[in-house]
Amino acid sequence: MLIVRVEQRGAAQWGVLEGETIHLTRGLTGPRTGETLALSEARLLAPAEPSKIVCVGRNYLDHIRELGNDTGDLPAEPGIFLKGPNALAEPGGTVEYPSWSENFHFEGELALVIGQRARNLKADEALGAVLGYTCGLDLTARDRQKTDLQWFRAKAADRFCPLGPWLVTQFDPSDVRVQTRVNGEPRQDGRTSHMIFDVVQILTYLTRFVTLEPGDVVLTGTPEGVGPLQRGDRVEVEVDGIGVLETFIG
Amino acid sequence: MLIVRVEQRGAAQWGVLEGETIHLTRGLTGPRTGETLALSEARLLAPAEPSKIVCVGRNYLDHIRELGNDTGDLPAEPGIFLKGPNALAEPGGTVEYPSWSENFHFEGELALVIGQRARNLKADEALGAVLGYTCGLDLTARDRQKTDLQWFRAKAADRFCPLGPWLVTQFDPSDVRVQTRVNGEPRQDGRTSHMIFDVVQILTYLTRFVTLEPGDVVLTGTPEGVGPLQRGDRVEVEVDGIGVLETFIG
Repeated sequence: MLIVRVEQRGAAQWGVLEGETIHLTRGLTGPRTGETLALSEARLLAPAEPSKIVCVGRNYLDHIRELGNDTGDLPAEPGIFLKGPNALAEPGGTVEYPSWSENFHFEGELALVIGQRARNLKADEALGAVLGYTCGLDLTARDRQKTDLQWFRAKAADRFCPLGPWLVTQFDPSDVRVQTRVNGEPRQDGRTSHMIFDVVQILTYLTRFVTLEPGDVVLTGTPEGVGPLQRGDRVEVEVDGIGVLETFIG
Repeated sequence: MLIVRVEQRGAAQWGVLEGETIHLTRGLTGPRTGETLALSEARLLAPAEPSKIVCVGRNYLDHIRELGNDTGDLPAEPGIFLKGPNALAEPGGTVEYPSWSENFHFEGELALVIGQRARNLKADEALGAVLGYTCGLDLTARDRQKTDLQWFRAKAADRFCPLGPWLVTQFDPSDVRVQTRVNGEPRQDGRTSHMIFDVVQILTYLTRFVTLEPGDVVLTGTPEGVGPLQRGDRVEVEVDGIGVLETFIG
């Protein structure tokens, strides 16, 4: 099933996408309202209403190397950081280049949205806590990541997390291709099988420390190839089996 | 006005405290329902429903020195980190000593709760965005703060942010005493006038990067005197003009 969230008459509404038609639903999991709209006419929103966005840093070895952080040892545990809900941005949206950064980077990622409250997940329960998978763009002010005490404005500023275009509920995250293009040019091309910590390991780790709530978003880390953006750029994050998340840099 | 949040018949409800009597209200800012309960019989909850908890690190010079982080220069900008809503814990509650830390610290702080959506606040608007002030306990796994990539589990684990006992709406945060006691013994005793960045500077800084939403919590940093906790400890954070936030370590 493909789950979409759309703006309809000024409010956010959930729906199910079949072919080119969106069937609106009562809430995220409720029955269909009977109202439909064409995908081409819909204004898609980020498909999540999270209480928190939990991100994994340095989860692909080649990306660790390209940032000069390779110490010879793989990380023993996932490196986790948070964004707040204000970081979400809609598919097809424009994110302004921050006036306070001179090195604003794209990081394309596989993202997932939690479907049920989860604490201390066991490995064989982890994927069952996931509602669906989508594409995420972890926008990063690389210069501020280096100068600041923690990665707050570098990662968690408003609209630094475009997400979408929809959630895919039947999906195997273990070995899919994750690509990022800038103005149509390939920049990142990885596979989730190259993650240091896979989705199951990420979810079992996280839920040792925090309760994941329905709607919470998890970003699983970025492969190598990150780089700077310019005003006017068009960024596409594509995950095979999901689709393309498009973002414009204003 | 003193605003409280209580558990009543299994649900969270807002109210106003007058003397020893809580007058329940319809929502946070709605009229009184007519129902009252005695403070002594109420189960107080953390007085906030945040979308995010934004914290300032290293905001008192003596605390920077005690952690060995003094470089001779004051920080040029506030050092910010996030906790998620699951970090909240109620006044009088018990927080379990984390099994994955061997150096779990108290940090008593002045906290505030946002009353209206705020972005790019000017200095003369900043305090007007605050609904009220309360006491916060920024629980910190000091050992994990040092070993981990970012301060996720060190700061943002479930129940690592006791808050309360209530919100004080008429309050001048510029020069109040902030004390922390452990088992009745004084451990921290600072004044908010010693902050490197005061509340106005914190709010104008934060809202350059993120939108603060009604209910969001801001912790303003801790004075010197932080230290390790043991199972069975009773922690009190007292802010003059507000009251005492009591937390038990289980």
